[in-house]
Amino acid sequence: MTHPLRQHIEEIINLTDEEFDFVLSHFQKIKKRKHQYIVQAGDIVNKEYWILKGCLKSYFIDDNGKEHILQFGMENWWITDYESFVRQIESKTSIDCIEDSELLYITFENREKLTAEMHKMERFWAKKSKIGRIALQNRILSLLKNSSKEKYNLLLEQYPKLFQRVPKKMIASYLGVSRETLSRLNS
Amino acid sequence: MTHPLRQHIEEIINLTDEEFDFVLSHFQKIKKRKHQYIVQAGDIVNKEYWILKGCLKSYFIDDNGKEHILQFGMENWWITDYESFVRQIESKTSIDCIEDSELLYITFENREKLTAEMHKMERFWAKKSKIGRIALQNRILSLLKNSSKEKYNLLLEQYPKLFQRVPKKMIASYLGVSRETLSRLNS
Repeated sequence: MTHPLRQHIEEIINLTDEEFDFVLSHFQKIKKRKHQYIVQAGDIVNKEYWILKGCLKSYFIDDNGKEHILQFGMENWWITDYESFVRQIESKTSIDCIEDSELLYITFENREKLTAEMHKMERFWAKKSKIGRIALQNRILSLLKNSSKEKYNLLLEQYPKLFQRVPKKMIASYLGVSRETLSRLNS
Repeated sequence: MTHPLRQHIEEIINLTDEEFDFVLSHFQKIKKRKHQYIVQAGDIVNKEYWILKGCLKSYFIDDNGKEHILQFGMENWWITDYESFVRQIESKTSIDCIEDSELLYITFENREKLTAEMHKMERFWAKKSKIGRIALQNRILSLLKNSSKEKYNLLLEQYPKLFQRVPKKMIASYLGVSRETLSRLNS
């Protein structure tokens, strides 16, 4: 059976068996239980995670203790505090598990090594980065222009599975709407 | 005098004179007057622009005719409809000039050629893309968690020049606040 990470990478570039083994040798696997952290605000994040199984959220806690969800992650998604990982500065966000999760991670050094040695993988991440940037831009557009109902419907359309796996209060936090508004939309 | 594009690129990678001439040969220069477009919604965008002089805005018009500003651009900034440029699909946004502007642009084909022939330039754009992604993520965080006043102060702190060059109603549109709210913050 093809490794799920290989399937994921081969959506963008093709790899020989040897190349995939080489790529995989730069990753390590960890398991985390529901509610466990992979990143805590203030950490200098040294790993980027690829989700083999499970569901996670990255979020920011404001001065009033309110949680703002920046990103969800499910199978085949990458997750980390990107700013901390790239700039090696303190993370503003925390990331924890909404479900028991299995993750593959690559350290900053291994990712640098791998992209330097294998131009193909640099192309892979460059492409993923472009896709990620487009998604972020569309999210900004949605936050600026869409009503709560439109934001809710868009998310439901894009990620129907998320609604089965994630508590409603987290959906509300991600959309930047109150739980009361969400209950109305949801009924 | 060093070319401003060379100064800009050399913030990230070093170039020899010959290399910079080669890079520059992939760009063309255009001048646009205030209010003129470089992108109109519905275009398949084939160019990425680097701003030599002037000020531009990219924006989305919603079904009610309301303008939502996604990005401003000033000297040394890159601007295009990124999703249209990367995916070669119809642009959702329009981009026009707030001031008379001078721009350098590179076509999609020339950018592909240049990055294929010059690994350094691929690294340059990969780095710019990372920085861009971090900025977008921070903007999402700001839209989710900050009050109108906090959003306003953050923008003023990051881009003081913008407030001298751009009408207040555009600042309000960028921040996703009403003009009335902005007037209050501004007084």
